[in-house]
Amino acid sequence: MDFKRCDQTVAWTALQGHFEAHGRDFDLREQFARDPQRFAQFTLAAPEVFADLSKNRWDVATRRLLTELARECGLEARRDAMFAGEPINTTEGRAVLHTALRAPRGQGLFSDEVHGVLDRMLAFADSVRDIAASGIRHVVNIGIGGSDLGPQMVVPALDAYAHPGITLHFVSNVDGHDITPVLRRLQPSETLFIIASKTFTTQETMANAAVARDWFLAHGGDEAAIASHFVGATTNLAAAAAFGIHTTFGFWDWVGGRYSLWSAIGLPIAIAIGSDHFRALLAGAHAMDQHFATTPLHDNLPVQLGLLDVWYRNFHRFTSRSVAPYHQGLKRLPAYLQQLEMESNGKQVDLAGERLPIGSSPVVWGEPGTNGQHAYFQMLHQGTDVIPVEFIAVKHPTHPHTGLQAKALANCLAQSQALMLGKTTEAALAERAPTASATLGKLTLARHRTFPGNRPSTTLLLERLTPSALGALIALYEHRVFTSGVLWGINSFDQWGVELGKALASELLPRLSDPARLGDGSGLDASTAGLLAWLTAGAA
Amino acid sequence: MDFKRCDQTVAWTALQGHFEAHGRDFDLREQFARDPQRFAQFTLAAPEVFADLSKNRWDVATRRLLTELARECGLEARRDAMFAGEPINTTEGRAVLHTALRAPRGQGLFSDEVHGVLDRMLAFADSVRDIAASGIRHVVNIGIGGSDLGPQMVVPALDAYAHPGITLHFVSNVDGHDITPVLRRLQPSETLFIIASKTFTTQETMANAAVARDWFLAHGGDEAAIASHFVGATTNLAAAAAFGIHTTFGFWDWVGGRYSLWSAIGLPIAIAIGSDHFRALLAGAHAMDQHFATTPLHDNLPVQLGLLDVWYRNFHRFTSRSVAPYHQGLKRLPAYLQQLEMESNGKQVDLAGERLPIGSSPVVWGEPGTNGQHAYFQMLHQGTDVIPVEFIAVKHPTHPHTGLQAKALANCLAQSQALMLGKTTEAALAERAPTASATLGKLTLARHRTFPGNRPSTTLLLERLTPSALGALIALYEHRVFTSGVLWGINSFDQWGVELGKALASELLPRLSDPARLGDGSGLDASTAGLLAWLTAGAA
Repeated sequence: MDFKRCDQTVAWTALQGHFEAHGRDFDLREQFARDPQRFAQFTLAAPEVFADLSKNRWDVATRRLLTELARECGLEARRDAMFAGEPINTTEGRAVLHTALRAPRGQGLFSDEVHGVLDRMLAFADSVRDIAASGIRHVVNIGIGGSDLGPQMVVPALDAYAHPGITLHFVSNVDGHDITPVLRRLQPSETLFIIASKTFTTQETMANAAVARDWFLAHGGDEAAIASHFVGATTNLAAAAAFGIHTTFGFWDWVGGRYSLWSAIGLPIAIAIGSDHFRALLAGAHAMDQHFATTPLHDNLPVQLGLLDVWYRNFHRFTSRSVAPYHQGLKRLPAYLQQLEMESNGKQVDLAGERLPIGSSPVVWGEPGTNGQHAYFQMLHQGTDVIPVEFIAVKHPTHPHTGLQAKALANCLAQSQALMLGKTTEAALAERAPTASATLGKLTLARHRTFPGNRPSTTLLLERLTPSALGALIALYEHRVFTSGVLWGINSFDQWGVELGKALASELLPRLSDPARLGDGSGLDASTAGLLAWLTAGAA
Repeated sequence: MDFKRCDQTVAWTALQGHFEAHGRDFDLREQFARDPQRFAQFTLAAPEVFADLSKNRWDVATRRLLTELARECGLEARRDAMFAGEPINTTEGRAVLHTALRAPRGQGLFSDEVHGVLDRMLAFADSVRDIAASGIRHVVNIGIGGSDLGPQMVVPALDAYAHPGITLHFVSNVDGHDITPVLRRLQPSETLFIIASKTFTTQETMANAAVARDWFLAHGGDEAAIASHFVGATTNLAAAAAFGIHTTFGFWDWVGGRYSLWSAIGLPIAIAIGSDHFRALLAGAHAMDQHFATTPLHDNLPVQLGLLDVWYRNFHRFTSRSVAPYHQGLKRLPAYLQQLEMESNGKQVDLAGERLPIGSSPVVWGEPGTNGQHAYFQMLHQGTDVIPVEFIAVKHPTHPHTGLQAKALANCLAQSQALMLGKTTEAALAERAPTASATLGKLTLARHRTFPGNRPSTTLLLERLTPSALGALIALYEHRVFTSGVLWGINSFDQWGVELGKALASELLPRLSDPARLGDGSGLDASTAGLLAWLTAGAA
């Protein structure tokens, strides 16, 4: 595939000059003082999401050059190729069509297949939600990575829309301390297990599925009942049938794991919120797809966010970004974004296999605000590194506590304000000093209460955290990651980096489980052999 | 307070030379090949924790110089000053005595006070655990930051020890979507609320406590019953009494929030696991305290971990560290460590108020293994930045699924092995190439399947995740953070960086809640004013 990596463009060279002249010493406070239009110029409205990008270290020229960079890297053509179903996942020879999963009936590629499975899956979800008939009160999703993080993130986010009589549980880790406390609280007769694994071979998922099956049979379920208490989100019908599963919902090789909550992997979501709300989730994502596909780059929100990511990573050399959703329902969004962004763009070779000379994905991390304020925000304000922060706030809550809502929003706004404004030592000196050690001088104390400011942030606002708004928000992140991936010349849709560990784990497993090889360190490095010996000591 | 910052020492200069000569190009694989003693030399046994530090980018000389650096910075004297109750939290004029909270009766400072409250709190916890008598089935801890993260992390970690008839809930966020779904499932008669706030003024905690109180009264509880369904972990007896709370457990100004789970803030833990197990948690931490206080620096585990942190942060310039506990019960350990480490050392002035010329706290982040493997580990293996990883594994599970346990451990060992060993392009070429795009050459595909290796990690092993082992592990982290804080010349015990945001939030709140000032953007920067206008539009 033809591509142009960002560091090999004319715009890149221009940006380097621009950074030296106007980027390195950029001061947000000066820019706001100088330009009364700054807020208007650097806000963007996309479907369901209003974005304030004005508290970032860029100006009109930076944005123009970055947009030119995107054009020179052929972002538009690559985007169009994705929507058109070309095999842009070159290392796996696959198309990338999660956008087709949310296209209205008759509009996207593979529409018949997509809507066929979707209709069947939603009908099944609604039948489970008829709890008087189904008898189901607990749904356990067994899946990992892309078969876990999407549903695990969306279900609490849309708690206000959830069926009050059904509790969702998520089991992912092969560590048995994950499934054990979940099963302890359940009864087979009122439990539905979803085994989510495209190939029905994922080690963790199969191991947990076997434990669930054993538990089911040991607690009064019988073999025949497995078919009505276990379903599969999988394409391996033979393996599922051998397990006892006859209800399956499939998907396609053009659905990547971390882009799969829109497919049959979304079944736990559909059971929680029902078919209409699930369709609204898809519709919200589709609206963002349209925005991404058709809006000029300069006003295209996922594009502009992706460009800022490149600017921060490669020019300012910021190595991480903190995400702070001021909505407790979004508590798993950072974990979801870690997979979406770091698995997509955490790579060091470009499409041609050449080593990247520049940084790619940053670390993405965070906790909901206001919780983070009482934990690591100290470092965001006064640490030695600059870490851009992304605030997400929702105007209308789904709860009636208006006092709490006002406080949450005030805190959200105050944090981005504080990061930008900072506080000078002079201002700290002028304040009444806190009661503290008599041994410290006033100036020393004031220096501890000084904030450098000029710390950048983005704020994303939603009217309400509806299924539609959440769908749009997730699609926004998907396309933003696509954008930076294209600029870096990366294949954002493979994950070769997970293979080596898998292979080595298979090789190590008998040394931890086969009585004949327990603790056998032959052929291993001394550290791995030593750890193995420690873990198997006395077990022979 | 006299102190010597690490960058102003003789050892620092020596380390700079050593880094240029032997650090920058350090190759772990070569070192293991060269030195058969490397594992033995770089493992350390501390109470309850066995640590393998051999897969890190250091050699005997690095460690000797770093240990000399610690000595030159006066680490031992500062440590002894902490244990002795000297006011080492200079900016607040306070002692730092969380270690006194876990000293055996009669041994630590303030032993009578400490054990007086502890005895009373544990007797209360055990009375709640007598559920036939107490009627309590649900305990809701309302607290934030240090009054939340410790209990929220420890309770699931010690799930195997928890009372099966009592469910713990944690409400922290001022966002009302936190408390709302919790209350929906509860009945006043079987619920106990713990209001955890030293001052009984923390904004989030007081707002949520008021909601809980209103809910209690609206759902059949009466004013008189508040005294038996609400208790306080607080020192503000008057404010608690005004709320209707008469059972309170206090603590002292020498207990920092992020070091407070050992105090009355640990009440939810004590209710979950009971008094004997809570005392074991304290005893494990005390054993680590003794190790830290008395073991020579060269073999002192928290010291050596802290020194590696400095080496990585200031010489290798790594900006984050990923924590991967291969135990699902430790799922909140990364969030706990974010506060412990980033709030303690995320600072840019030293004790004298001088601006630090070097980096301080890194970003700490992670998810449990094996989940992370299916999310962001792609980037750890093949990303452009080196990110040291800290693995934590437990030999004996509390569940009976030995097959799962072997798989969890095999994965943990395989990941550190893969990070170190990597895979050359030649090795990838020699493998059977995966089925993939016909348009990519074999060499290009092999480059995508290449791993640089030489990526460092530490592995911490525990025999069992008992209360005692968990206590030791947490204390290990506390003292490690102390160590790097001393070297950086930081006061690790204040948090001035949280004050500005708090003040600005108070100033903004009326603009979001007072009908007379709704949306009033006067005096604000254009971005904050614009966001405020968006959030209040149509609400007047």
